[in-house]
Amino acid sequence: MDKRAFFWRVIAGELPPPRAAETLGIRFIQIDAEAGSVEVEFQGRQEFTNPAGNIQGGFLAAMLDDTMGPALAATLKEGEFAPTLNLNVSFHRPAVVGKLVGKGRVIKRGKDICFLAAELYQSEDLVASAAATAVVRLLQT
Amino acid sequence: MDKRAFFWRVIAGELPPPRAAETLGIRFIQIDAEAGSVEVEFQGRQEFTNPAGNIQGGFLAAMLDDTMGPALAATLKEGEFAPTLNLNVSFHRPAVVGKLVGKGRVIKRGKDICFLAAELYQSEDLVASAAATAVVRLLQT
Repeated sequence: MDKRAFFWRVIAGELPPPRAAETLGIRFIQIDAEAGSVEVEFQGRQEFTNPAGNIQGGFLAAMLDDTMGPALAATLKEGEFAPTLNLNVSFHRPAVVGKLVGKGRVIKRGKDICFLAAELYQSEDLVASAAATAVVRLLQT
Repeated sequence: MDKRAFFWRVIAGELPPPRAAETLGIRFIQIDAEAGSVEVEFQGRQEFTNPAGNIQGGFLAAMLDDTMGPALAATLKEGEFAPTLNLNVSFHRPAVVGKLVGKGRVIKRGKDICFLAAELYQSEDLVASAAATAVVRLLQT
């Protein structure tokens, strides 16, 4: 069995992206495992809109979570995973149906506790930003 | 034209729920407009899962946003809406595919700035909790 981490097998196209990432229309643009940073694209869909016709904030939060997740995942070893403990999102302006770009990075990679940050852009305007805390755990086998 | 706020027309079944709420499988269980509190049900779907098979944290954040939103919306007048400024979510335990219940309330309804809180349960276990800040605005007509 291939011992590379799940994340890298997704990037290599050997495995499909997780269902949540697929629902958000994820596409990887750039990955720097050494720096722990990623740039990803999402699709803001009609199914994510609020009564004003904008993308509901919670779905922008889901995109930011799925930007920081891969930034950390790129640094994980086989058999490790890193659930999010806390996610704090600020909403700067409305996002409409269409493409969004997430830029995320690992701020500090501790022994197990990790601090992450990300921003979400639409047409180069900042629409939301986030900070998160995650913890690296060993998968139970 | 009916002058009741969008929210109440959804509750009355006169309008469909917003697309984002529909995607999350929202169903209203209880609404107390005077207290500014609601209890809502969501469907944690396969399409929201992470590689571990649990509901991705971002989608739990979206559910919490859609629990606090209606709690505040129940207090709004015709022509008002209340975008979220900040959403802070803590994840207490994994949630699996299936039903989730959100309990949300308005902590303080200021002249325009509002503070909200909510918890998300699965099989009566607390899976995530959130605090949010929102601002009441007049819809541009």
